[in-house]
Amino acid sequence: MRIALDAMGGDSAPAVTVRGALEAVEAFGLEVILVGDEELVRRELGGGTLPSGIRVRHTSQLVAMDEQPSAALRRKKDSSIRVAVDLVKNGEADAVVSAGNTGAAMAISFFVLGAIDGVDRPGIAAVMPSAKDPFVLIDAGATVDCRPVHLLQFGVMGSCYASTVLGRTRPTVGLLGIGEEAGKGNELTKEAFKLLSDSKLNFVGNIEGKEMFSGAVDVVVCDGFIGNVALKIGEGLVDALAKMLKQEISGSMLGKIGYMFMRAGLPGIRKKMDYAEYGGAPLLGINGVSIISHGRSTAKAIKNALRVADDSARKNLTGIIGAGIGEAMHDANPDISGVTVNAA
Amino acid sequence: MRIALDAMGGDSAPAVTVRGALEAVEAFGLEVILVGDEELVRRELGGGTLPSGIRVRHTSQLVAMDEQPSAALRRKKDSSIRVAVDLVKNGEADAVVSAGNTGAAMAISFFVLGAIDGVDRPGIAAVMPSAKDPFVLIDAGATVDCRPVHLLQFGVMGSCYASTVLGRTRPTVGLLGIGEEAGKGNELTKEAFKLLSDSKLNFVGNIEGKEMFSGAVDVVVCDGFIGNVALKIGEGLVDALAKMLKQEISGSMLGKIGYMFMRAGLPGIRKKMDYAEYGGAPLLGINGVSIISHGRSTAKAIKNALRVADDSARKNLTGIIGAGIGEAMHDANPDISGVTVNAA
Repeated sequence: MRIALDAMGGDSAPAVTVRGALEAVEAFGLEVILVGDEELVRRELGGGTLPSGIRVRHTSQLVAMDEQPSAALRRKKDSSIRVAVDLVKNGEADAVVSAGNTGAAMAISFFVLGAIDGVDRPGIAAVMPSAKDPFVLIDAGATVDCRPVHLLQFGVMGSCYASTVLGRTRPTVGLLGIGEEAGKGNELTKEAFKLLSDSKLNFVGNIEGKEMFSGAVDVVVCDGFIGNVALKIGEGLVDALAKMLKQEISGSMLGKIGYMFMRAGLPGIRKKMDYAEYGGAPLLGINGVSIISHGRSTAKAIKNALRVADDSARKNLTGIIGAGIGEAMHDANPDISGVTVNAA
Repeated sequence: MRIALDAMGGDSAPAVTVRGALEAVEAFGLEVILVGDEELVRRELGGGTLPSGIRVRHTSQLVAMDEQPSAALRRKKDSSIRVAVDLVKNGEADAVVSAGNTGAAMAISFFVLGAIDGVDRPGIAAVMPSAKDPFVLIDAGATVDCRPVHLLQFGVMGSCYASTVLGRTRPTVGLLGIGEEAGKGNELTKEAFKLLSDSKLNFVGNIEGKEMFSGAVDVVVCDGFIGNVALKIGEGLVDALAKMLKQEISGSMLGKIGYMFMRAGLPGIRKKMDYAEYGGAPLLGINGVSIISHGRSTAKAIKNALRVADDSARKNLTGIIGAGIGEAMHDANPDISGVTVNAA
């Protein structure tokens, strides 16, 4: 598989992106096209002949982290993220990875590659840690104003991702809500509950934020606003707990000693909570594989994002989602399909 | 102050509620009216003469934890929660506390006591821990489908609570969102952002879930659906982290030793994360003080909820909110007030 990597995207680009690419080529035997300022990229590569599996595609522009996505989409036709997505569109690459401006990466991927037939809105599938196995949260921030049918489609896409890439058999799907009963929730989730119940998904009903992190289901469905808030609460709370821990130990000798022992004995939990392990989150529902990574991605995170991109492309995730959506929308009652078409 | 306590509400009622009442009377010198099955309550009290500061009000019904709030409201006129709220309505008590069925406690409080003039929807103000000081999250679950003006009113009510009960000077207010810029968010928050900006609140803009737990603001405003999800994610994640920690240490001698030291040295962090410390969350926007406590409340949590009820009543929180809402709705432009009236 040939993966186009936005070499200029991310807080420490291109140093980190180039390093991640080299590690991925070495570990997974894939091919990476580094898209960005050729001079800077080649300098990071150490000059001389390109390593095997690495190609470079020069671009003259880049999208800043705080740039308006719509402006980037209109004006930056030769930016590293735009050209990387174009490579997928033209068939020169099988997938794209970017740790740059998230909004721009999403907007450009959606605009250039287009939606899969039957999909109304794209959704980001973020893989998150739980007390048991990791789970997929969809949508983690692509579509902030949702209608019920969007949540049904997120359920289908998340389920395809969990089975295809995470290897879950008949993934369980839960709807993020505020109580287990069907009648609990807001207007959006009450309607979505019915659609999900009527679908062929392995839908287990509403699930609360509490159960999510205990690993109750494989896929958690929600709108992109709440999903993004949830994602950031997760990050924030882990940071806050670590900070509280540090404050407390600085005032207590016993605590200090304990912390030292724990640090030595607990690499597992750090690994579990480490976002870099999961690499990046795919933008699902578009015609192609596009992986969105955290702006603070390390080389390891980039490497893992490239692995996810490779995996998704090799296993034909896009085709599988297309089939799943086709079936789900065919099964859904005509009223719903009508609503979808009218509002699209 | 005389506080009506729903003695039958909560997973371990009336044992825990009676114990909490006795501790509160002892610690804060307030008066508690235990509302519930007199025989059961007196048995918990050990029989004989009632302790000073304790009264008992017999009721023949109770609302089960899984009962429909609307059914409880219509049919259970002599339930412990209903009679406790009635006591506030009739002026026989200054506040009510319930750890029973949350939906029923909210519905009955709102129906019996009514809304403060100018308030469209009530909001639950939950006090949550952060790496710095605790903050107020409003709405934590009372109003799951919100319009922008509701979020403005939550901001006013949360601000009044933070200044009156938590003693914060000119509390900072943040809008829970997915990015700091004014243009980021969903339809609801983008409109609410404008209303909050135009108000006299100390509004600092959008705040992300990440910053919330770092203690960036005194008051976090959001709709009741997302607020409830956020609350439960918080609980769930803390539990999941504790579980992960336990799994890891059971496989490592160093980890086990470390955990022992940490346990000894870290009472502070446990206290900070302990919901019982905060007791209960007031339902704001209604004509009276009603404190909603967790169904799993311990005696300590009940005691602290009674303290919050006492404090809120003594400091005339309801009157202060009424004045704050009056001012804010007067300041808001006529279009907004119009929308409010039409949809009410």
